[in-house]
Amino acid sequence: MPKGDATKGELKTPSCRFCHGSNGIASQPSYPNLAGQQQQYLYDAMLAYTNGTRTGPMATMMKGQLQNLNSQDLADIAAYYSAMK
Amino acid sequence: MPKGDATKGELKTPSCRFCHGSNGIASQPSYPNLAGQQQQYLYDAMLAYTNGTRTGPMATMMKGQLQNLNSQDLADIAAYYSAMK
Repeated sequence: MPKGDATKGELKTPSCRFCHGSNGIASQPSYPNLAGQQQQYLYDAMLAYTNGTRTGPMATMMKGQLQNLNSQDLADIAAYYSAMK
Repeated sequence: MPKGDATKGELKTPSCRFCHGSNGIASQPSYPNLAGQQQQYLYDAMLAYTNGTRTGPMATMMKGQLQNLNSQDLADIAAYYSAMK
Protein backbone atom coordinates (compact mmCIF):
# COMPACT_ATOMS: atom_id res chain seq x y z
CA MET A 1 0.00 0.00 0.00
CA PRO A 2 1.38 3.46 -0.84
CA LYS A 3 1.71 5.88 2.10
CA GLY A 4 -1.67 7.62 2.40
CA ASP A 5 -2.27 11.34 2.84
CA ALA A 6 -5.53 11.99 4.69
CA THR A 7 -5.74 15.62 3.57
CA LYS A 8 -5.50 14.63 -0.07
CA GLY A 9 -7.83 11.74 0.63
CA GLU A 10 -10.59 14.07 1.75
CA LEU A 11 -10.58 15.73 -1.67
CA LYS A 12 -11.17 12.37 -3.33
CA THR A 13 -14.23 11.32 -1.35
CA PRO A 14 -17.18 13.27 -2.77
CA SER A 15 -18.74 10.15 -4.25
CA CYS A 16 -18.11 8.12 -1.07
CA ARG A 17 -20.10 10.49 1.11
CA PHE A 18 -23.50 9.90 -0.35
CA CYS A 19 -23.62 6.40 1.15
CA HIS A 20 -20.87 6.37 3.79
CA GLY A 21 -21.70 9.80 5.26
CA SER A 22 -19.68 12.99 5.49
CA ASN A 23 -18.63 11.84 8.97
CA GLY A 24 -17.92 8.26 7.91
CA ILE A 25 -21.17 6.97 9.43
CA ALA A 26 -23.33 5.26 6.83
CA SER A 27 -26.55 6.86 5.68
CA GLN A 28 -28.30 3.50 5.56
CA PRO A 29 -27.87 0.44 7.81
CA SER A 30 -26.95 -1.80 4.89
CA TYR A 31 -23.84 0.29 4.18
CA PRO A 32 -20.73 0.10 6.36
CA ASN A 33 -19.44 2.91 8.55
CA LEU A 34 -15.89 3.84 7.53
CA ALA A 35 -14.87 6.20 10.34
CA GLY A 36 -11.96 4.77 12.29
CA GLN A 37 -11.79 1.62 10.21
CA GLN A 38 -8.38 -0.01 9.72
CA GLN A 39 -6.44 1.76 6.97
CA GLN A 40 -5.02 -1.43 5.46
CA TYR A 41 -8.45 -3.07 5.44
CA LEU A 42 -10.02 -0.11 3.67
CA TYR A 43 -7.26 -0.06 1.07
CA ASP A 44 -7.50 -3.82 0.51
CA ALA A 45 -11.30 -3.67 0.22
CA MET A 46 -11.20 -0.89 -2.40
CA LEU A 47 -8.45 -2.63 -4.33
CA ALA A 48 -10.41 -5.89 -4.27
CA TYR A 49 -13.44 -4.10 -5.70
CA THR A 50 -11.40 -2.53 -8.49
CA ASN A 51 -9.75 -5.78 -9.55
CA GLY A 52 -12.91 -7.85 -9.18
CA THR A 53 -11.77 -10.16 -6.39
CA ARG A 54 -14.42 -8.82 -4.01
CA THR A 55 -17.90 -9.63 -5.19
CA GLY A 56 -21.30 -9.14 -3.63
CA PRO A 57 -24.46 -7.06 -4.04
CA MET A 58 -22.58 -3.75 -4.04
CA ALA A 59 -19.49 -4.86 -5.95
CA THR A 60 -20.47 -3.62 -9.40
CA MET A 61 -21.43 -0.23 -8.03
CA MET A 62 -18.25 0.04 -5.96
CA LYS A 63 -16.08 -0.95 -8.90
CA GLY A 64 -17.69 1.79 -10.95
CA GLN A 65 -17.20 4.39 -8.22
CA LEU A 66 -13.52 3.50 -7.89
CA GLN A 67 -12.63 2.95 -11.53
CA ASN A 68 -10.81 6.24 -12.06
CA LEU A 69 -8.76 6.07 -8.85
CA ASN A 70 -5.21 4.74 -8.73
CA SER A 71 -3.53 2.99 -5.81
CA GLN A 72 -2.27 6.29 -4.37
CA ASP A 73 -5.81 7.66 -4.42
CA LEU A 74 -7.07 4.56 -2.60
CA ALA A 75 -4.33 4.88 0.03
CA ASP A 76 -5.21 8.55 0.55
CA ILE A 77 -8.90 7.74 0.97
CA ALA A 78 -8.06 4.91 3.38
CA ALA A 79 -5.90 7.31 5.42
CA TYR A 80 -8.70 9.86 5.51
CA TYR A 81 -11.37 7.50 6.81
CA SER A 82 -9.14 5.60 9.20
CA ALA A 83 -8.11 8.86 10.89
CA MET A 84 -11.74 9.87 11.44
CA LYS A 85 -13.17 9.56 14.94
CA MET B 1 -32.88 -10.15 9.27
CA PRO B 2 -34.16 -11.80 12.48
CA LYS B 3 -34.22 -9.56 15.56
CA GLY B 4 -30.76 -9.84 17.12
CA ASP B 5 -29.99 -10.38 20.80
CA ALA B 6 -26.60 -8.87 21.72
CA THR B 7 -26.31 -10.88 24.94
CA LYS B 8 -26.77 -14.14 23.09
CA GLY B 9 -24.52 -12.83 20.36
CA GLU B 10 -21.63 -12.45 22.74
CA LEU B 11 -21.73 -16.17 23.49
CA LYS B 12 -21.39 -16.94 19.78
CA THR B 13 -18.28 -14.88 19.09
CA PRO B 14 -15.32 -16.85 20.48
CA SER B 15 -13.96 -17.56 17.01
CA CYS B 16 -14.52 -13.95 15.88
CA ARG B 17 -12.32 -12.53 18.60
CA PHE B 18 -9.03 -13.91 17.49
CA CYS B 19 -8.98 -11.59 14.47
CA HIS B 20 -11.58 -8.92 15.25
CA GLY B 21 -10.56 -8.38 18.88
CA SER B 22 -12.41 -8.88 22.13
CA ASN B 23 -13.32 -5.19 21.96
CA GLY B 24 -14.24 -5.30 18.26
CA ILE B 25 -10.98 -3.63 17.22
CA ALA B 26 -9.03 -5.79 14.80
CA SER B 27 -5.80 -7.44 15.90
CA GLN B 28 -4.19 -6.78 12.52
CA PRO B 29 -4.65 -3.84 10.15
CA SER B 30 -5.80 -6.05 7.30
CA TYR B 31 -8.86 -7.14 9.31
CA PRO B 32 -11.85 -4.86 9.84
CA ASN B 33 -12.91 -3.40 13.16
CA LEU B 34 -16.47 -4.48 13.99
CA ALA B 35 -17.24 -2.32 17.03
CA GLY B 36 -20.10 0.05 16.28
CA GLN B 37 -20.51 -1.16 12.72
CA GLN B 38 -24.01 -1.09 11.21
CA GLN B 39 -26.01 -4.11 12.35
CA GLN B 40 -27.64 -4.71 8.97
CA TYR B 41 -24.29 -4.46 7.19
CA LEU B 42 -22.69 -6.99 9.53
CA TYR B 43 -25.57 -9.40 9.06
CA ASP B 44 -25.53 -9.01 5.28
CA ALA B 45 -21.75 -9.49 5.16
CA MET B 46 -21.85 -12.70 7.20
CA LEU B 47 -24.78 -14.03 5.18
CA ALA B 48 -22.95 -13.23 1.94
CA TYR B 49 -19.93 -15.18 3.16
CA THR B 50 -22.04 -18.18 4.09
CA ASN B 51 -23.90 -18.33 0.76
CA GLY B 52 -20.81 -17.58 -1.31
CA THR B 53 -21.89 -14.25 -2.79
CA ARG B 54 -19.09 -12.39 -1.04
CA THR B 55 -15.71 -13.44 -2.30
CA GLY B 56 -12.21 -12.21 -1.61
CA PRO B 57 -9.00 -13.24 0.12
CA MET B 58 -10.74 -14.02 3.43
CA ALA B 59 -13.95 -15.46 2.03
CA THR B 60 -13.10 -19.15 2.31
CA MET B 61 -11.92 -18.72 5.88
CA MET B 62 -14.97 -16.67 6.84
CA LYS B 63 -17.34 -19.16 5.26
CA GLY B 64 -15.70 -21.90 7.31
CA GLN B 65 -15.96 -19.92 10.52
CA LEU B 66 -19.64 -19.21 9.94
CA GLN B 67 -20.75 -22.56 8.57
CA ASN B 68 -22.43 -23.83 11.71
CA LEU B 69 -24.33 -20.62 12.45
CA ASN B 70 -27.92 -20.02 11.38
CA SER B 71 -29.54 -16.69 10.51
CA GLN B 72 -30.57 -16.09 14.12
CA ASP B 73 -26.98 -16.61 15.24
CA LEU B 74 -25.76 -14.11 12.64
CA ALA B 75 -28.35 -11.56 13.76
CA ASP B 76 -27.29 -12.01 17.39
CA ILE B 77 -23.62 -11.53 16.51
CA ALA B 78 -24.45 -8.46 14.43
CA ALA B 79 -26.41 -7.01 17.36
CA TYR B 80 -23.49 -7.66 19.70
CA TYR B 81 -20.86 -5.91 17.61
CA SER B 82 -23.05 -3.03 16.47
CA ALA B 83 -23.84 -2.19 20.11
CA MET B 84 -20.15 -2.04 21.03
CA LYS B 85 -18.59 1.38 21.50
